[in-house]
Amino acid sequence: MTTEALVDAHKSTLDKALEAIKTREYWSPYPESPRAYGEDAPALGEAAFKARLGRPFELDQPCAGMMEVAESSPYGIELGVTYPRPDVDRLVELARDAMKTWGRASAETRAAVCLEILDRLSKQSFEMAYAVMHTTGQAFMMAFQAGGPHALDRALEAVAYGYRETTRVPVAMRWEKPQGKRDPLIIDKEWHVRPQGVEVTIGVSTFPTWNGYPGIMASLVTGNASIIKPHPGTILPLAIFVETARAVIAEAGFDANLVTLAVDTPDAPIGKDLVLNDAVRLVDFTGGSAFGNWLEANVPQAQVFTEKSGVNSVIIDSVPDLKGIMRNLTVSTSLYSGQMCTTPQNIFIPRDGIDVGGEHVSFDDVVRAYTSGLEGLLGDDDRASDILGAIKGADTLARIESAASSGEVLLESRTVVNPTFADATVRTPVVISVDAGDEDIYMREMFGPVIYVVATDSTEHSLQLARESASTHGALTWLVYTTDEEVSRRAVDSAVEAGVSVAFNLFGGLYVNLSAAFSDFHVTGANPAGNASLTDPAFVANRFRLVGVRKSVLS
Amino acid sequence: MTTEALVDAHKSTLDKALEAIKTREYWSPYPESPRAYGEDAPALGEAAFKARLGRPFELDQPCAGMMEVAESSPYGIELGVTYPRPDVDRLVELARDAMKTWGRASAETRAAVCLEILDRLSKQSFEMAYAVMHTTGQAFMMAFQAGGPHALDRALEAVAYGYRETTRVPVAMRWEKPQGKRDPLIIDKEWHVRPQGVEVTIGVSTFPTWNGYPGIMASLVTGNASIIKPHPGTILPLAIFVETARAVIAEAGFDANLVTLAVDTPDAPIGKDLVLNDAVRLVDFTGGSAFGNWLEANVPQAQVFTEKSGVNSVIIDSVPDLKGIMRNLTVSTSLYSGQMCTTPQNIFIPRDGIDVGGEHVSFDDVVRAYTSGLEGLLGDDDRASDILGAIKGADTLARIESAASSGEVLLESRTVVNPTFADATVRTPVVISVDAGDEDIYMREMFGPVIYVVATDSTEHSLQLARESASTHGALTWLVYTTDEEVSRRAVDSAVEAGVSVAFNLFGGLYVNLSAAFSDFHVTGANPAGNASLTDPAFVANRFRLVGVRKSVLS
Repeated sequence: MTTEALVDAHKSTLDKALEAIKTREYWSPYPESPRAYGEDAPALGEAAFKARLGRPFELDQPCAGMMEVAESSPYGIELGVTYPRPDVDRLVELARDAMKTWGRASAETRAAVCLEILDRLSKQSFEMAYAVMHTTGQAFMMAFQAGGPHALDRALEAVAYGYRETTRVPVAMRWEKPQGKRDPLIIDKEWHVRPQGVEVTIGVSTFPTWNGYPGIMASLVTGNASIIKPHPGTILPLAIFVETARAVIAEAGFDANLVTLAVDTPDAPIGKDLVLNDAVRLVDFTGGSAFGNWLEANVPQAQVFTEKSGVNSVIIDSVPDLKGIMRNLTVSTSLYSGQMCTTPQNIFIPRDGIDVGGEHVSFDDVVRAYTSGLEGLLGDDDRASDILGAIKGADTLARIESAASSGEVLLESRTVVNPTFADATVRTPVVISVDAGDEDIYMREMFGPVIYVVATDSTEHSLQLARESASTHGALTWLVYTTDEEVSRRAVDSAVEAGVSVAFNLFGGLYVNLSAAFSDFHVTGANPAGNASLTDPAFVANRFRLVGVRKSVLS
Repeated sequence: MTTEALVDAHKSTLDKALEAIKTREYWSPYPESPRAYGEDAPALGEAAFKARLGRPFELDQPCAGMMEVAESSPYGIELGVTYPRPDVDRLVELARDAMKTWGRASAETRAAVCLEILDRLSKQSFEMAYAVMHTTGQAFMMAFQAGGPHALDRALEAVAYGYRETTRVPVAMRWEKPQGKRDPLIIDKEWHVRPQGVEVTIGVSTFPTWNGYPGIMASLVTGNASIIKPHPGTILPLAIFVETARAVIAEAGFDANLVTLAVDTPDAPIGKDLVLNDAVRLVDFTGGSAFGNWLEANVPQAQVFTEKSGVNSVIIDSVPDLKGIMRNLTVSTSLYSGQMCTTPQNIFIPRDGIDVGGEHVSFDDVVRAYTSGLEGLLGDDDRASDILGAIKGADTLARIESAASSGEVLLESRTVVNPTFADATVRTPVVISVDAGDEDIYMREMFGPVIYVVATDSTEHSLQLARESASTHGALTWLVYTTDEEVSRRAVDSAVEAGVSVAFNLFGGLYVNLSAAFSDFHVTGANPAGNASLTDPAFVANRFRLVGVRKSVLS
């Protein structure tokens, strides 16, 4: 396809995305229902995934042979994929070269090439689902939706923002300044987008595509090149992305080295080397706070965008009905075993109990409604497996043990047997009861299936602790249950102060963990959970610069 | 006036500014002609300025008494103003408190209060002109225009950008996600602006208002507080700004400590202390590279926006007529004695000469046209004084001397006697001839009236040197003279690569030094001359964060 044809082919999708980021209304061009992809798609996708296993993942990028990696599956299957061994300095050099023509292409062309990449990836949704499932431990349906269509939504959102920002000044115009009775001053002006430089994406082990695509796409659409360094334990999904992106870029007549893969192992990490290369001007990171904080403080030559981690809070003040909210809360605290950065960790409840539809209900009874709800939800191994997925890291397993010894265990973590994958690592959440004063126990991130129920003096006290926790350890989400308008108002003020997105009174199928592209911003960037937001104008505005050209009109 | 009345009063101006930043067409609500301000304005303004001299500049902000400062006038008059002695930690604390209500006000209210401040300042344009003239050394007309209306244009531009960015998502909306045959998922959403924190503006000695207002206004309109630390040698203009801003803020019912003044002296600088306070989250700096580079690398808790310095280039390739361009170039290299960060310093000319309207003209003849043009322009002391203004810093005077000994002097710097101020420090530019190979002489910033004429191998060589210079030392402007379309195209490519604004073939009254608010971006942010641009979306997008609120619709 010529670039003109690509632009035409994707114009309508781009226009709709531009409208969606403005209205924030629900919209998605990539179907989230697996049924929408045709009858053959599941089997073809699974076959494509299986064909990747136990062999080299060849990419036509320059490399020093293939290397073995530490990628492993929480479902216990053997992956055995080897990847190109990267030469970091060479990849950066190639990325710079590739930017020369890409950076001078039109905004329309760049957006169209990005959208073509997303379209191709959409067709690979089943293959990607299996790749995400078996590397991250997500259950199949989450891996399909979050790893495929929802990740593509987030990618498209970033393309739309980048396109909008790079096209906000006229390409060219004539400027006339009146001079009273004299002739006006006249000059022709134009503005050129200048990309910042090479971008490095440092991927996460749990949602490699959903968290990775936005930074990559925001960088590409604004003219930069992207070097992708996946998490050493979760490589395959981003390797598939790189393969597809390179194919589309080359077909469109650009240099495929605009997108390259740079894998590493826990024993020989290359992240610091890579980001400290002077040509690297943009870094997108999702992962733990330790490396995220290091990046924020130690890479002065680059813009660094981080999503780190946080301690998310639930504040229960008053509810019309206990069962309805517990159906929601038990699911949101169980999904993917709490390995979402948006999963609630601490549930604050006044020790004197709460109002439930006009009746007073004790602290213990509220807690019991939650733990018995969890038991019901996760009592059957097959159903539990579909909700919990599998545990990705050994650290996460260890946290379940250490949490259990830190307070009164209200509900023990239970080993679940996955009906298909006998070696899968599956655990139900452990629920611990602590007092508000036990801050050293619960006011820290315990990533994974660990939930603290915290007895507080009052809802005001709960809000204060949630604020304190967000300011010191970061937070991505709050979930507040209240029937009181005044409490609601104060909770909003607290959330704004703490810089945390807040949801009220969720029930039914809307979970606090989920954030919808084109509508919800993921991470505010206003507390230690991260300095960037997916996707707001600040996420793209600094990925390029405008160079003004003035040409005198010779009279 | 109520805030509602303020919003109404300024709505039309705000709307026009929003339109102007989109079309980039000429527009200014603040008249640049002194005659537009009424017959009494000049005398009243001068009297207001004189009434400031030799006495304390009282502000109703908390302070530890008054202090003497090192402010001085390049026109040789005695200023003798004392200012409140700041308690840095206390000012930061007060700024944080003041943000509490301001940060929760509506975008419309904040923009209206900002515009009211600008309106009041516009009425003080003559007083401000004298304050700018006598602290910076600008000639009266430049001090009036750049210090008054043009600075207000830049301020309004920043308000418009900040307002636009904070109002790009709906205040509230209902989100509906279809669920096939089931009921849709429905939730009400709203977004709240969360300011980043306290802003510190570090002022410059030469254009305190023009360079200072944008950062202050971008911060205020997005909900932050501003602490203003003027250059120790140029305090009065920003002190007047603080006085006016505080009065308007208090009248509008907000806490006046939203804007405070923090002066210091060269012997006891407070800049580092101030910016390293943890509550400071935004820093706007205009000034030298040494402190600017320090700020960029050493203030991890804040966003740092810099305009530092650069080495600007003129590239002469071919012209239709030598006289026309020299009339333009001699003015642009003389205005305010080269103390504008946009003034050309290096004039690159092929040593074999150039084409002038089809005739070959030798290097020496081109240079002679320039130096004799300068002699003609600045031959008369009265006229020279109006163009040159006066020299602000002792360092700048010293650079004239050191430059003269660094190469062949083509035109000596001459002492000019100002007709009104006998003690004014006025010098004409020194013009030095160097060879392209003498990079250690000319490829560094020589701020002030120092011009190098550089003999190169070719225009291609000139462009290469200009690129190299911009990449290593920064550059704000290039001015290219060529009648060749191909050279023009290559010059644009070079400018984009070097991240420098470029103007072609300027003649008549449009000087390369001047950048028009609402149309020209000042500094690209893409080379060492600075990391920010006045004003683009990146300048405002990160001064606030959005906090999302989702409220479940109970059915």
